[in-house]
Amino acid sequence: MTPERYTKLNQVLDCRQPDLTLLTDQVHKPRNIAALIRNCDAVGIQQMHAVTPAVSHRPFNGTARGSQQWVDLIMHDSVENGVISLQHQGFKVVAAHWSSRSINYTDWDYTQPTALLLGAERMGVSTRGADLADAHVIVPMVGMVASLNVSVAAGIILQEAQRQRAVKGMYEYCRLEELERSRIFFRWAYP
Amino acid sequence: MTPERYTKLNQVLDCRQPDLTLLTDQVHKPRNIAALIRNCDAVGIQQMHAVTPAVSHRPFNGTARGSQQWVDLIMHDSVENGVISLQHQGFKVVAAHWSSRSINYTDWDYTQPTALLLGAERMGVSTRGADLADAHVIVPMVGMVASLNVSVAAGIILQEAQRQRAVKGMYEYCRLEELERSRIFFRWAYP
Ligand SMILES: C[S@@+](CC[C@H](N)C(=O)[O-])C[C@H]1O[C@@H](n2cnc3c(N)ncnc32)[C@H](O)[C@@H]1O
Ligand SMILES: C[S@@+](CC[C@H](N)C(=O)[O-])C[C@H]1O[C@@H](n2cnc3c(N)ncnc32)[C@H](O)[C@@H]1O
Repeated sequence: MTPERYTKLNQVLDCRQPDLTLLTDQVHKPRNIAALIRNCDAVGIQQMHAVTPAVSHRPFNGTARGSQQWVDLIMHDSVENGVISLQHQGFKVVAAHWSSRSINYTDWDYTQPTALLLGAERMGVSTRGADLADAHVIVPMVGMVASLNVSVAAGIILQEAQRQRAVKGMYEYCRLEELERSRIFFRWAYP
Repeated sequence: MTPERYTKLNQVLDCRQPDLTLLTDQVHKPRNIAALIRNCDAVGIQQMHAVTPAVSHRPFNGTARGSQQWVDLIMHDSVENGVISLQHQGFKVVAAHWSSRSINYTDWDYTQPTALLLGAERMGVSTRGADLADAHVIVPMVGMVASLNVSVAAGIILQEAQRQRAVKGMYEYCRLEELERSRIFFRWAYP
């Protein structure tokens, strides 16, 4: 491994945010999953969650630009199991979803442990997922079309999470546990 | 036309921002163009610009969700012609591009007439496009992968433009010229 590569892996690990994640509710288009994984990598999410039936981990097209090797994908067999298991781990689950209780996405405090729940192109977030979520957020839109592409919506919301966390200095020290950090480093360095 | 439809068309027209636009530099994947058009519609961009060889306007897949009927696509035969014609119309051209003169995307004032220049998946913004641009902006990233999907990057930057313009009250009154506004209304109402 070159010294540059060694430095890069360490820098990226020092920015990973174990208390920020994303959960997809039946998003099954591979290119959407791939773009979401790429978004996760960009803001420092190490583990992404998906409700099956989702695509298998491998047959992604170019959209991921190899990001699937840097982000772990964890599968759940129902949105209920996904949401509840994250809540048990201390996450607030925030659905990107329109409802009477929706707030503007900038009004959520993403420096608390947050899992962003996203819906599929046609169906959106399921009723069950929306009911279980701790909050609903929306990105304001002023056009004719009713929604954004799921990876664009996720990118916008995660960028706000990153901004808030940067302000709080959460990218300035390693936030992974020692053991977890070395396990990931080893996996990345010697695949 | 139902009264609801009539109201909706008028509300959307009253939010259109004639002094905000987007220019693609050889982005040719139809689904990326489609997602970019959808982003434009969402923040109130009425005219989007593309440098050919770009895809023709029609064969878009589902990603646009019909947004191509609400946003006009204007073609240019080179990035040079595209950038210079926009600059002649008074736009500052801001390239989403890494260089020694890049600034954080939140540090640009998008309430001035702004055209966002975006590059293709592999090539990025061309050297010629980058040289001609008035400024370069980047969305900060902390992961292993070097870039975001083009529609995600555009969505994040345009959302910041929308936020700044909302703060300035630029969505609170109709910003299209009378004649232009009725031409578009007519086209939308009686296609
Ligand atoms: C294409 S949208 C789904 C639209 C679906 N037909 C509906 O009405 O819910 C896919 C997912 O992207 C997210 N999304 C898209 N646009 C959004 C916005 N403006 N605000 C928040 N989330 C959005 C939501 O999670 C949504 O379920
Ligand atoms: C996939 S990227 C191109 C990457 C290309 N290999 C390069 O190095 O420029 C496609 C386009 O999306 C935009 N883009 C992607 N990520 C960006 C970021 N973090 N900041 C600003 N623009 C970005 C740029 O306009 C870029 O040309």
